[in-house]
Amino acid sequence: MASNQFGRLFTVSTFGESHGPALGAVIDGCPAGVLWRQDIMDLFLDRRRPGARALTSARNEADKVEILSGVFEGKTLGTPIAAVIYNQDARSKDYTAEKLATRPGHATDLWQEKFGHSDPRGSGRASGRETASRVIGGAVAKMLVTQLHPEVVVYGFVESAAGIHMTGEEVAEAVRILDVRPEGVDEFSLRLPNGGKNSALQEILIKSKEAGESHGGVAHLRMTGVPRGLGQPVFAKLKSDLAAAFMSTG
Amino acid sequence: MASNQFGRLFTVSTFGESHGPALGAVIDGCPAGVLWRQDIMDLFLDRRRPGARALTSARNEADKVEILSGVFEGKTLGTPIAAVIYNQDARSKDYTAEKLATRPGHATDLWQEKFGHSDPRGSGRASGRETASRVIGGAVAKMLVTQLHPEVVVYGFVESAAGIHMTGEEVAEAVRILDVRPEGVDEFSLRLPNGGKNSALQEILIKSKEAGESHGGVAHLRMTGVPRGLGQPVFAKLKSDLAAAFMSTG
Amino acid sequence: MASNQFGRLFTVSTFGESHGPALGAVIDGCPAGVLWRQDIMDLFLDRRRPGARALTSARNEADKVEILSGVFEGKTLGTPIAAVIYNQDARSKDYTAEKLATRPGHATDLWQEKFGHSDPRGSGRASGRETASRVIGGAVAKMLVTQLHPEVVVYGFVESAAGIHMTGEEVAEAVRILDVRPEGVDEFSLRLPNGGKNSALQEILIKSKEAGESHGGVAHLRMTGVPRGLGQPVFAKLKSDLAAAFMSTG
Amino acid sequence: MASNQFGRLFTVSTFGESHGPALGAVIDGCPAGVLWRQDIMDLFLDRRRPGARALTSARNEADKVEILSGVFEGKTLGTPIAAVIYNQDARSKDYTAEKLATRPGHATDLWQEKFGHSDPRGSGRASGRETASRVIGGAVAKMLVTQLHPEVVVYGFVESAAGIHMTGEEVAEAVRILDVRPEGVDEFSLRLPNGGKNSALQEILIKSKEAGESHGGVAHLRMTGVPRGLGQPVFAKLKSDLAAAFMSTG
Repeated sequence: MASNQFGRLFTVSTFGESHGPALGAVIDGCPAGVLWRQDIMDLFLDRRRPGARALTSARNEADKVEILSGVFEGKTLGTPIAAVIYNQDARSKDYTAEKLATRPGHATDLWQEKFGHSDPRGSGRASGRETASRVIGGAVAKMLVTQLHPEVVVYGFVESAAGIHMTGEEVAEAVRILDVRPEGVDEFSLRLPNGGKNSALQEILIKSKEAGESHGGVAHLRMTGVPRGLGQPVFAKLKSDLAAAFMSTG
Repeated sequence: MASNQFGRLFTVSTFGESHGPALGAVIDGCPAGVLWRQDIMDLFLDRRRPGARALTSARNEADKVEILSGVFEGKTLGTPIAAVIYNQDARSKDYTAEKLATRPGHATDLWQEKFGHSDPRGSGRASGRETASRVIGGAVAKMLVTQLHPEVVVYGFVESAAGIHMTGEEVAEAVRILDVRPEGVDEFSLRLPNGGKNSALQEILIKSKEAGESHGGVAHLRMTGVPRGLGQPVFAKLKSDLAAAFMSTG
Repeated sequence: MASNQFGRLFTVSTFGESHGPALGAVIDGCPAGVLWRQDIMDLFLDRRRPGARALTSARNEADKVEILSGVFEGKTLGTPIAAVIYNQDARSKDYTAEKLATRPGHATDLWQEKFGHSDPRGSGRASGRETASRVIGGAVAKMLVTQLHPEVVVYGFVESAAGIHMTGEEVAEAVRILDVRPEGVDEFSLRLPNGGKNSALQEILIKSKEAGESHGGVAHLRMTGVPRGLGQPVFAKLKSDLAAAFMSTG
Repeated sequence: MASNQFGRLFTVSTFGESHGPALGAVIDGCPAGVLWRQDIMDLFLDRRRPGARALTSARNEADKVEILSGVFEGKTLGTPIAAVIYNQDARSKDYTAEKLATRPGHATDLWQEKFGHSDPRGSGRASGRETASRVIGGAVAKMLVTQLHPEVVVYGFVESAAGIHMTGEEVAEAVRILDVRPEGVDEFSLRLPNGGKNSALQEILIKSKEAGESHGGVAHLRMTGVPRGLGQPVFAKLKSDLAAAFMSTG
């Protein structure tokens, strides 16, 4: 059953296994005439990029996105936007040796059971790398919103993780600053907008990485300037769609 | 834009304004041959029924559901199941006087703005009464699951509300008992499975009702015996669909 | 799998077995504020009504539609419009004797094979009566188009059937007249807009009915005043959606 | 509004402008473990290829499809299959001179009106070249059907065009032969399975091409061995889906 698409009028379809030739997204429903903002695309992909901040995966890929359709002379055409990221170190061969060794936490066991033919290459779709395709869709959505509703501000930050917690006052202070200048959050390596606590968290996570441990946390997401009446009543409420999106990333 | 439907292969479409002639649901995608369990339908609707427990709304309707299609000789036909609840005290006339007085918390303001023509009769679709339609869909789903996977157990209870909190030990104890006999939760008037705290909460809520106040709370939902591999990977994960469903009720 | 719905932004879902308690439709996506035109609904259902013209089925039902939701004080609310036709002579009992005798041409055999539990009552959904639900949807669509685009004219007539053929000149003449006054087609009992040939066809069909025969024919459908750019490019072209709709009626 | 997708459980999404960098398709819903048949893909694309038979467009592209995802070690993975054809002579520059000269029959006028920003490069999506993306989807469907139901035979041929008509006897004879060996139709340059009439048609079409004329025709499509009960009742009938697909190609 087809299940790799999200959205109603503006849809994002993702494809690509983490160690196959490429991954990407097709965005359909974006109107014509939207200014193509490569800076937004690069910023969004950079934020997600493994290796960017020394704490995440060792694979250091540039994640350069190639636009195959839907954009012409710096504007969208109203046709589907196909975007591809070629996997530069698609080390498929490295995986042949460990073919039958499933990786816990990558859900490979379950895929094996459900699809009867698993993909040993880095767990295929059940990998954090699949989210790069979603980021492409998000960047196009951001271009559209920026043009139609420049007053909308959307950002997120880490409120707590691995035992480090921002206080209510610190959160309120951060929100007061970031509402005006949301890009400020990128100045904190782990996007925890408090200098001391960001450093403390970084120290913990570097040790955890060496020990092969992972931690949960709380993300704080904020939107201001959102037009009234966004979303549909009953089932297609904005909060319902957001919840579905967030819960599908894990 | 059509937005009153939930589901993919098994869909529930709801209709009906709270004080119009009727409300109901059309369930499509239920296979043929499922035993019609009127006891499940009645139990589910009874749990939601206003007035049943003296704390909820004063309107005391029996919520008798009438099946218009899709069921024949005690079994489903594989065709759409249309189910209707006629509003017995559809007091539309009572609402004419207060037509322009929107009711806070019923989102009528927003509907007015979005649809340009609001329904003064008890706020129409933006009412808790709309959830009766969803309960019909849930009852049919329960009939299907009961027949195909009798080992699946699904139930929910109130873990905390209005300042009354079950402790971790109390929750664990409740779960141990309810996993075996989930219908036991119905023995607590507010579905808080701890006798003393259920009574305390009831006392608070009766006073709150007189004062016209409302409270938040935490629901504990539990499923056991669920088949492995349920849901689709990537966007249509089970947890993603559940999140969308829950967030669309409020 | 759910398959009883048609449309994208404006959807029509149909339900009801031909000899169950009722049949009907839920129309979702109709905007608020559309004037409810009961005359259009009655005209549309009357055109389809069995028994209306002595040639069709002997069952003579008035097909009175009851609106359960979505309409208030003569206008649509923007919420789902649920409409029901109760089967007045739901002669379920008559069917018990012939339960296992499938009726050729009603596809009951196939339903039996596919759904494993067929409905002996007049073949359930695989009956021309199911189209009454579609007519309800069409009537609501007509109300919407009439209000937004009164210049749009849509009508259809029988161009040939059972060996009776209108000539090219006769068709051109009929179109010239009907473009101005499309309701004129209702003056011909079989909607073949040529007095002599309509009578000839009627004579043939009365005999065919006695002999238990049926005939093919050609319908001529015409739309004028349609806004440019209707439909979507690529897959959701207007002509593609129309083809799907027509081919799903047989 | 997103409208570049076809299908329900097995979906084909197409993207790409005729003179952009690439065109392609994403196929979702194909189960895991289907043998990848590059021979089927090549045969299907070769049949559609412009220039292959000297009658069609002068552009002579090899249409080599590159698989970006969904296939591993010769089998499908159950994940989305993304396939891309890079436009080898994407002569975008050639089109700058004639930017405002719309090409009749390419619907560019309408796109201009609807999307407010047309694509001068060979008319973008409103081009026969878009069908290459659909052929990719069809080839994957063929691989799936070949594996699950090898007894299914599907083929098509030209029955009449430009005043050349096969007789009923000739059609019957062609069908008798092609039912057993459907690939035989590829031996006729224009897929009109009658040597003399195929040659006659070719002669006419070469002249028409020089004169810049085009002709209508009749395609004969045939499926045998199709499993009973394919398609859904009511709206999603097999014939309804086929009609929508065919009517969306023109």
